[in-house]
Amino acid sequence: MRWAIIGTGALGGLYGARLQEAGEEVHFLLRSDYAHVRAHGLQVDSIWGDMHLRSGNWYDGTRAMPTVDVACVCWKTTANAQLAETLRPLLRPDTLILLLQNGIGAEEEVAAAFPGQPVAGGLAFLCSNRIAPGHIHHLDQGRIMLGAHACPAERLQAVCERFSAAGVPVSQAESLSAARWRKLVWNIPYNGLCAILQQDTSRIMACAATRDLVAALMQEVHSAAAATGNILPADLPEQMLRTTDAMPPYRPSMQLDRENGRPLEVVYLYDRPLALAHAASCAMPRTATLAAQLHALEQ
Amino acid sequence: MRWAIIGTGALGGLYGARLQEAGEEVHFLLRSDYAHVRAHGLQVDSIWGDMHLRSGNWYDGTRAMPTVDVACVCWKTTANAQLAETLRPLLRPDTLILLLQNGIGAEEEVAAAFPGQPVAGGLAFLCSNRIAPGHIHHLDQGRIMLGAHACPAERLQAVCERFSAAGVPVSQAESLSAARWRKLVWNIPYNGLCAILQQDTSRIMACAATRDLVAALMQEVHSAAAATGNILPADLPEQMLRTTDAMPPYRPSMQLDRENGRPLEVVYLYDRPLALAHAASCAMPRTATLAAQLHALEQ
Repeated sequence: MRWAIIGTGALGGLYGARLQEAGEEVHFLLRSDYAHVRAHGLQVDSIWGDMHLRSGNWYDGTRAMPTVDVACVCWKTTANAQLAETLRPLLRPDTLILLLQNGIGAEEEVAAAFPGQPVAGGLAFLCSNRIAPGHIHHLDQGRIMLGAHACPAERLQAVCERFSAAGVPVSQAESLSAARWRKLVWNIPYNGLCAILQQDTSRIMACAATRDLVAALMQEVHSAAAATGNILPADLPEQMLRTTDAMPPYRPSMQLDRENGRPLEVVYLYDRPLALAHAASCAMPRTATLAAQLHALEQ
Repeated sequence: MRWAIIGTGALGGLYGARLQEAGEEVHFLLRSDYAHVRAHGLQVDSIWGDMHLRSGNWYDGTRAMPTVDVACVCWKTTANAQLAETLRPLLRPDTLILLLQNGIGAEEEVAAAFPGQPVAGGLAFLCSNRIAPGHIHHLDQGRIMLGAHACPAERLQAVCERFSAAGVPVSQAESLSAARWRKLVWNIPYNGLCAILQQDTSRIMACAATRDLVAALMQEVHSAAAATGNILPADLPEQMLRTTDAMPPYRPSMQLDRENGRPLEVVYLYDRPLALAHAASCAMPRTATLAAQLHALEQ
């Protein structure tokens, strides 16, 4: 199967390297690390075993790339304004566009840009960092959960099998939308609060006021999920609070993005869920407060 | 008339100096600046005319002070845990306790601590800073608005006359509670957001997202005021947005407090209004979000 990895960073570098090592034909799109990787290859230090891709199909744009069976979008949603233009050269009518991204709403946009194109999405539960140009460090977890947005079941099943053959723990979501909302129940409170207050999860949980606020935010997201047709378990917020209590101090990606002066994923983590909730007449005032503050930090 | 100034800072130093210069008998409580002021006097640079109080009744505690006619509380509400103990030595049965403080709810606490004691409150519209030990710089405005909490009208009238005779523009509020809620319509959005985001008012107003959030917060406070019996003009939020647009970039006191590592006035600016609104079955979710974030910053 021929793959394009759109964004060879902490996520795309890991999964792309696993696929290539398993014998898949992989074409990597890079941006800032292109020159380095072309000269030195891609280094992935991983709990699944270290990999060094000396040779690979490296590109700094998609126009020189062949069309593919699966275009796997691994960059952050903050680059999505360029996504349609980036994808176009890779697509045959049956190319599956697979979005491994945070938040909600990106599949709809891609499907609107390419009517009739197969589109699926996925969540990565992954702790991995780009620690230097062309150098990725995969520290923990790594499973992915895929779901169809508009895609024949056998196509998605085939993709799952290739990931699985490459040693990536993979499962299928009953509902991609419900899976995305479920992850938002955690991401909306912690990503925003940790980025705004510049405090890690353990400090947020140690302060009674912010702990209560996290619980209230989780309840807002849970209610918005229900209002948009995604019924999540009633005790999910309580479960997630307990899980987070048991975690070592953790800085969510948005906090790291702020610390490193990178753009924040406000649009797909906050604005899109708020718009969906609003359309379902469901108010999310605490979530809206965080969203506005995050936009202010981006100014 | 014999006065005690509880907290000789940017506010207490200015008004106390004006009163003493006008011939009132003023006793000043100082904390960190006591030794300096005792040695060098109190310097007040003011748009109303500079003053240097070479001699004065300076104290570092209230036990050595005489009982007074008016105990004027000028320190920040963050010191209020010590207020009852501090006031006790100053009080005769008819001593008026006058709270020139931000927020809401402090008069109730003082009245509960000293049943039957006359209590009034006031708002200061003042731009004044302590720029060095014993050195105050009054840059702009300065009017005060007083209102009875539990106090005979003639007592408050007499106090107003003394302030007026000392050159301080003074008026009486129809309702102290309504005046305090009115000021909260401005203070709740701007103090919290500017402190949390570390952005001044003009940056908050320049970002569409935070500008909308300010308007939504103002509406929450306006509704909570109404729910607790304080009907403010319907167009007050709109007026305040326009006024703030016309202001030069401004850092509210809570932002300055955060920048200088001082405690934040969260209790009387946020927790008390939230509790009053909650008791009136009025939700303030955006205000509660700011309050929780401010508490987290205090940890």
